[in-house]
Amino acid sequence: MSSIYKLIEIVGTSSESYEKAIEHAISKASETVKAISWFQVLEQRGAVRDGQVTEYQVIMKVGFKLLD
Amino acid sequence: MSSIYKLIEIVGTSSESYEKAIEHAISKASETVKAISWFQVLEQRGAVRDGQVTEYQVIMKVGFKLLD
Amino acid sequence: MSSIYKLIEIVGTSSESYEKAIEHAISKASETVKAISWFQVLEQRGAVRDGQVTEYQVIMKVGFKLLD
Amino acid sequence: MSSIYKLIEIVGTSSESYEKAIEHAISKASETVKAISWFQVLEQRGAVRDGQVTEYQVIMKVGFKLLD
Amino acid sequence: MSSIYKLIEIVGTSSESYEKAIEHAISKASETVKAISWFQVLEQRGAVRDGQVTEYQVIMKVGFKLLD
Amino acid sequence: MSSIYKLIEIVGTSSESYEKAIEHAISKASETVKAISWFQVLEQRGAVRDGQVTEYQVIMKVGFKLLD
Amino acid sequence: MSSIYKLIEIVGTSSESYEKAIEHAISKASETVKAISWFQVLEQRGAVRDGQVTEYQVIMKVGFKLLD
Amino acid sequence: MSSIYKLIEIVGTSSESYEKAIEHAISKASETVKAISWFQVLEQRGAVRDGQVTEYQVIMKVGFKLLD
Amino acid sequence: MSSIYKLIEIVGTSSESYEKAIEHAISKASETVKAISWFQVLEQRGAVRDGQVTEYQVIMKVGFKLLD
Amino acid sequence: MSSIYKLIEIVGTSSESYEKAIEHAISKASETVKAISWFQVLEQRGAVRDGQVTEYQVIMKVGFKLLD
Amino acid sequence: MSSIYKLIEIVGTSSESYEKAIEHAISKASETVKAISWFQVLEQRGAVRDGQVTEYQVIMKVGFKLLD
Amino acid sequence: MSSIYKLIEIVGTSSESYEKAIEHAISKASETVKAISWFQVLEQRGAVRDGQVTEYQVIMKVGFKLLD
Repeated sequence: MSSIYKLIEIVGTSSESYEKAIEHAISKASETVKAISWFQVLEQRGAVRDGQVTEYQVIMKVGFKLLD
Repeated sequence: MSSIYKLIEIVGTSSESYEKAIEHAISKASETVKAISWFQVLEQRGAVRDGQVTEYQVIMKVGFKLLD
Repeated sequence: MSSIYKLIEIVGTSSESYEKAIEHAISKASETVKAISWFQVLEQRGAVRDGQVTEYQVIMKVGFKLLD
Repeated sequence: MSSIYKLIEIVGTSSESYEKAIEHAISKASETVKAISWFQVLEQRGAVRDGQVTEYQVIMKVGFKLLD
Repeated sequence: MSSIYKLIEIVGTSSESYEKAIEHAISKASETVKAISWFQVLEQRGAVRDGQVTEYQVIMKVGFKLLD
Repeated sequence: MSSIYKLIEIVGTSSESYEKAIEHAISKASETVKAISWFQVLEQRGAVRDGQVTEYQVIMKVGFKLLD
Repeated sequence: MSSIYKLIEIVGTSSESYEKAIEHAISKASETVKAISWFQVLEQRGAVRDGQVTEYQVIMKVGFKLLD
Repeated sequence: MSSIYKLIEIVGTSSESYEKAIEHAISKASETVKAISWFQVLEQRGAVRDGQVTEYQVIMKVGFKLLD
Repeated sequence: MSSIYKLIEIVGTSSESYEKAIEHAISKASETVKAISWFQVLEQRGAVRDGQVTEYQVIMKVGFKLLD
Repeated sequence: MSSIYKLIEIVGTSSESYEKAIEHAISKASETVKAISWFQVLEQRGAVRDGQVTEYQVIMKVGFKLLD
Repeated sequence: MSSIYKLIEIVGTSSESYEKAIEHAISKASETVKAISWFQVLEQRGAVRDGQVTEYQVIMKVGFKLLD
Repeated sequence: MSSIYKLIEIVGTSSESYEKAIEHAISKASETVKAISWFQVLEQRGAVRDGQVTEYQVIMKVGFKLLD
């Protein structure tokens, strides 16, 4: 009766912003995992070259309901 | 020779207690994952409506041995 | 348009169980705060006398929507 | 003589970005709390439907001076 | 004049609930340590066999006054 | 029957010491909140000017019983 | 365009050292997960019998790129 | 043979967004520190005046290789 | 050859300051434990009555060498 | 019926490696504490002189069953 | 336009109190670092000999503005 | 009179073990920083290629006395 959910951990990246990194990762994960309903940011990092931020990286937990 | 284990993160829910939420989640996860041998509670939350607790939610890590 | 929520921190107590401590605190808080919709357990403690647990104490965050 | 401040915890939401969620929450909280002078992000979460981020949620502490 | 307390760390187990695990551990510890007055839950774990929870484990700190 | 407590978060400041900052904040908070019975230090910070500490700042949680 | 990574959590064991436990777990995980590129140690534990360490246990996160 | 890196902690600010605050800080730090290759966000804060966010502040660790 | 140390956890109290609470606890613990050489503050709390701090409480770890 | 365990905290040292520091501490602790069955690493530190590591230090929790 | 700050970590010591340890460290650091404007206490430790506290040690982060 | 110390954060790497990574980093840091007297491990990570650990990485704080 009561619902069960699973959480997986993914890392999204974007050269523009953390929101784009999140959206991209959620979109990609949704190809194989149906019913994602929430996420939580665990860590925000980034790559730098020649004094410029080249990549925003966001480590996140993604939650979805396990189908009955 | 030495054993390897995997940990997955699940969320169990129950309208009665955290123990019921844990038992339900373990039972459900055991349908697809064999050999679960331990779990660890990460977070305890809940839902409320009209001043009543309607759902106990427990976020937990579940560990099981990887078969050789 | 987008919703705003507030979180307050309360401590519930019960001589029986943590679930009773939570339910009691939620029920009491609902007398003055409308629209509580979730809670999160922060810490579980207790009091002891003569080798017996006399009180289960649960420190929790309670979340509710701010009305427009 | 020395100043005293209070911290409250709120959750802002936005369908666009974390900055919008923060701004919205600060703006809303300022209607009832005068003299907010700083905030601190505690957690960043979000809601997802059909593989799309529908809401950015930011849990934050907001600090303000208690008037003499 | 001022009181001094000591904290020790113990693990209680029960096949029924976390409350039973706590009560059992407090009761056992009280055989050798007098004057236990409070406890704090540090971690909640458990053992599983064949998809059933066989043991609830609670790691806790127990505090008691040092006699003068 | 069982008691319910509330926790609020305040910041005390003093040019002398952390104890003075705590005492000042507790004294000030007691003007509006009755029945404060304990506090917990969360963070200790400070302000500096010209190589001298000008202000000790202590972020603390203050707990009090909710009257029946 | 931007890359997406997944993180899974595994436990490696060895009777010799933490490095052996890590190497063994990485080697085992690589049989089913291609493209592992980094890991992070979360916790180091061990088993003891008769005053001798019989097993070093390392709980670790393992990261790998999701293929396009 | 093996590389050594150093991590320093800086705070970037921006009136627009956290990404701008990060970019500005990285750009500024690169004037004196060569070879910055990654960063990690530690804390996100902000300043408020008259109910408006006036400054986004990001506390971050910046890593760079020590030249041989 | 190499030294082994033990850590115990105690709580000191004082009506004056945290330093007095620490000194008192160290002095008391030294009556039964020889060779204490360092301590670490884990938590600072306190008791309040009628808007006055009546007790500073410091939870601390105390380390000492185990004699050969 | 259900088992009770105790956890103590010790520091092992070695001039060679963390594994040696752990083994030495476990061996030493086993002289007075029977039935040690597991340990957990809390912190890894070390001493340095003239640019050389002279001591690896490992702070660990050691668990053992309390006899009936 | 927007300001950039740097944080360094120092340890102050005093035989009297944590406030003296902080003041001394800030004063010393100000000889080489101009424009220190705030600090944050990370950890409080101490040394003991013959049952007496001989040194209060405070590990702290110190923040200062980077000049343009 | 009382001593002041500084802490810096470095990352050591080795293809063999964490101890080698630490030793290498300490040795390298000692070329420019005199009087390093202790270190503390913050995080242990590693790089993997083709199912083999190619690099052990240790993020550590290094402490040294500031000369008078």
